[in-house]
Amino acid sequence: MAEAETRKRSRGGGGAARRAERTAVSVETAKYIQRNIPNFEILNEEALEIIEANADTVLAEIGVNFVNNPAALDLWRDAGAEVIGERVRIPRGLARKLCSTAPSTFTQHARNPDRAVEIGGRNLVLAPVYGPPFVHDAKGGRRYATMADFEKFVKLGYMSKWLHHSGGTVCEPTDIPVNKRHLDMLMAHMILSDKPFMGSVTEPSRAQDSVDMCEILFGREFVQNNAVMTSLININSPMTFDDVMMGALEVYAKNNQACIISPFIVGGAMAPVSVMGTLTQVLAEVMAGIAYSQLVRPGAPVIFGAFVTSIDMNSGAPTFGTPEASQITYGAGQLARRMGLPFRSAGSFTGSKLPDAQAAYETANSLNMGLLSGVNFMLHACGWLEGGLVSSFEKFVMDADQLGALHKMAQGIATDEEAQAMGAIAEVGPGGHYLGCEHTQANFKSAFWRSEIFDFKPYETWSEEGARDTMALATERVQRMIDTYQQPHLDPGIHDALTEYVAKKKASMPDAFM
Amino acid sequence: MAEAETRKRSRGGGGAARRAERTAVSVETAKYIQRNIPNFEILNEEALEIIEANADTVLAEIGVNFVNNPAALDLWRDAGAEVIGERVRIPRGLARKLCSTAPSTFTQHARNPDRAVEIGGRNLVLAPVYGPPFVHDAKGGRRYATMADFEKFVKLGYMSKWLHHSGGTVCEPTDIPVNKRHLDMLMAHMILSDKPFMGSVTEPSRAQDSVDMCEILFGREFVQNNAVMTSLININSPMTFDDVMMGALEVYAKNNQACIISPFIVGGAMAPVSVMGTLTQVLAEVMAGIAYSQLVRPGAPVIFGAFVTSIDMNSGAPTFGTPEASQITYGAGQLARRMGLPFRSAGSFTGSKLPDAQAAYETANSLNMGLLSGVNFMLHACGWLEGGLVSSFEKFVMDADQLGALHKMAQGIATDEEAQAMGAIAEVGPGGHYLGCEHTQANFKSAFWRSEIFDFKPYETWSEEGARDTMALATERVQRMIDTYQQPHLDPGIHDALTEYVAKKKASMPDAFM
Repeated sequence: MAEAETRKRSRGGGGAARRAERTAVSVETAKYIQRNIPNFEILNEEALEIIEANADTVLAEIGVNFVNNPAALDLWRDAGAEVIGERVRIPRGLARKLCSTAPSTFTQHARNPDRAVEIGGRNLVLAPVYGPPFVHDAKGGRRYATMADFEKFVKLGYMSKWLHHSGGTVCEPTDIPVNKRHLDMLMAHMILSDKPFMGSVTEPSRAQDSVDMCEILFGREFVQNNAVMTSLININSPMTFDDVMMGALEVYAKNNQACIISPFIVGGAMAPVSVMGTLTQVLAEVMAGIAYSQLVRPGAPVIFGAFVTSIDMNSGAPTFGTPEASQITYGAGQLARRMGLPFRSAGSFTGSKLPDAQAAYETANSLNMGLLSGVNFMLHACGWLEGGLVSSFEKFVMDADQLGALHKMAQGIATDEEAQAMGAIAEVGPGGHYLGCEHTQANFKSAFWRSEIFDFKPYETWSEEGARDTMALATERVQRMIDTYQQPHLDPGIHDALTEYVAKKKASMPDAFM
Repeated sequence: MAEAETRKRSRGGGGAARRAERTAVSVETAKYIQRNIPNFEILNEEALEIIEANADTVLAEIGVNFVNNPAALDLWRDAGAEVIGERVRIPRGLARKLCSTAPSTFTQHARNPDRAVEIGGRNLVLAPVYGPPFVHDAKGGRRYATMADFEKFVKLGYMSKWLHHSGGTVCEPTDIPVNKRHLDMLMAHMILSDKPFMGSVTEPSRAQDSVDMCEILFGREFVQNNAVMTSLININSPMTFDDVMMGALEVYAKNNQACIISPFIVGGAMAPVSVMGTLTQVLAEVMAGIAYSQLVRPGAPVIFGAFVTSIDMNSGAPTFGTPEASQITYGAGQLARRMGLPFRSAGSFTGSKLPDAQAAYETANSLNMGLLSGVNFMLHACGWLEGGLVSSFEKFVMDADQLGALHKMAQGIATDEEAQAMGAIAEVGPGGHYLGCEHTQANFKSAFWRSEIFDFKPYETWSEEGARDTMALATERVQRMIDTYQQPHLDPGIHDALTEYVAKKKASMPDAFM
């Protein structure tokens, strides 16, 4: 962090820039969560060993496919795997051995050094929803997302105290050509926020653009020596590694940038209907993917990912916040910790079409589970709606508010003499009242986490104020956050260089919408 | 259970009654949860020992008040406590020693032997909301509860698969005189449901009525030898045991009936603002209360209760589903297990005025925590709204649906060969699809828990069907459940005897509304 600080200062503009920096409204962002509570360990040693042995069997006997990727097949062959066609069979123990060069924790830097995050260990970094082509709000309903929506989400993320990370594709800006939108998305994260962000993965060339733009933002040498992006590489479950995703992974790994390597599993469709079967497949897939990242560049930072949902067997629709998804995630967390790797899972998942009670039950189920399962990087931590088809403005701020409760829960329980409060108990005594006592006065400000959205007023006051539900309160909060948003300072020289890069790139190719 | 079965059969009516029993619609009720997952242990051994030592100090040096209860003071004095005025100081270790005669698990019987519940151990019994003077539904809004509302809730509880217990005061029937309503409430539980229920605690004479009516329902000898009620005895925190609650406790303990002995704590008001301080007070209060129950009758079944909420220090309003309440409950569960006592806590808590997203987040936070904290008896498991002032019909069925997810979660993870699904993984292979494979076909019916309320349909279908939110879906479900309700068979002789008891009792006293 000290290094980034120095670098930034030395590259900064003149006196005007420094003055702007000093007078900017300071936006409070909580430090990433450092857990002081245990993880919930759902599987015993025997079950874990069964899964690990079975995953090795899957890799050795069934194998995985690396599609349209002769270079990857060569790497695997050289490493000792059996390659027939596109099928790669990995001898028992080899994948795990290759994974061992991946770091157990890494720092992802941000252009504001105070916003750097440590990914791994007992930490939890929270990032917003990723990927939806639609947005929803109370006023406009459900509609295709635009770049204006994208920018609004980046601003909300910047203003959200409990969000440590600006994310990536917070929604798909469908009004921008598909081959150019990654440039605008990266610009938005770099300019409208100073939190860490994700790179593009939809083509290797777009991953390279992400690296190039980061080299403008952070300096080339800094990027080559430090992770400044964490990007999302999905595995096509079951056990298929396509050339687009692997191509992006190769770009990032070669440039020492971090990737989440993540099976994307709707249980019963892309994996067996059983928890043990799904965990076996998840582990096999992640081991193959991470091993491959380490073949590309030993030591490249990676995250053990697991996106898991269950399925409504009546309709085939994916379901969220379910007990089976929780069981799988608890187990996957244990498997990741046994490999000494950072773990990504959970999120503000729901199948609901509205930010209603269904959405909140399902989301709360997943957020609580995410904290206790030892997740280190939680993508989709706020704003997800309708099975990931929709980014919801109201749900974004509702969920982001709940993330505060995770921070407080994770602090654990202070046990010192002040916390024991024996003086207060003696002072108040039987039949007394604690509100006025010295201990309460000294501690009440930090004693209880407080929602910034929920209503605790008496019924009569609440009625007089319009009997608003959570949706209405969230609509108001979205507006208030956008109204008070102020862009964080960025060196004008860097801003200009980024603008120039994007303009040149856009001019170099025709628009594509497919 | 076999004994109850025999008793019931032998007391049953003639052929007509038996025919009615055979043709009645069978209502499915899940067995109480038997956990096959670990508990979440938030406190380490050192912290637990500090709390236990401090609780002993509180009892020995500060003491507790037994108000208007000379007989209780005599019992305490005889047991070795120091009694000055109404203050009882209990020498270190004495309360814990007295508690040791309480059973670690007990059976609460129901008039339908299949509905008996085991309270304690690794079990979790779920009971509905208790106490609100108001009810709420989408159509009628918020209004004072009536006996008709009460009966509707008892019917919903009877029809709810995941609810093992009919509860007690599911709402206060404010249209019935306060000195008579317990009779109507008991009748409703006894006649409209066949699940276990709770007795009255608002006066010792009403506790006695509860016992008398149970003797009609179950037979006198059966009641004296078996728990047929679990009733809620609140402690007036801090550290005050009033004569009304203790009077009810005395009646139940003497008749071998179970009580939950439960501090009622809004943190920062009735206990210190710190988790450790609150846990210390909770433990001291529960130990004093349970010790007293054992002085009244050694071996009387009891539950270690902990009703804890935090407080909004800006308004003084209690807050629900908060991280501090979770931390306290996790800790209290550990303390209860160390005493070998059944544990009661958590519930469908929320401060919201509507069954909206706030209500669902807060409730899901508490329900999940309740499962993982090792709760054995969860009162308020569904239907609670607005800080306990309101019983909500829609929220009752929403929450009751979520309780199904707790059942599935608690089953834990099957690890046998079928669950390992290695055949399925081999059969499907890289790039394949699991929906059609043999393992999926064989297991999909039980693989995933399925909500009976939530909507997983595609957006277009959902829109065409009216774009209903969870509230609207719940309104429909309430109506469907009430429409299909059928009263469970009860021996007409018993029914008549209960009716006669209530009529005589009501005639014996003037109406009282205060």
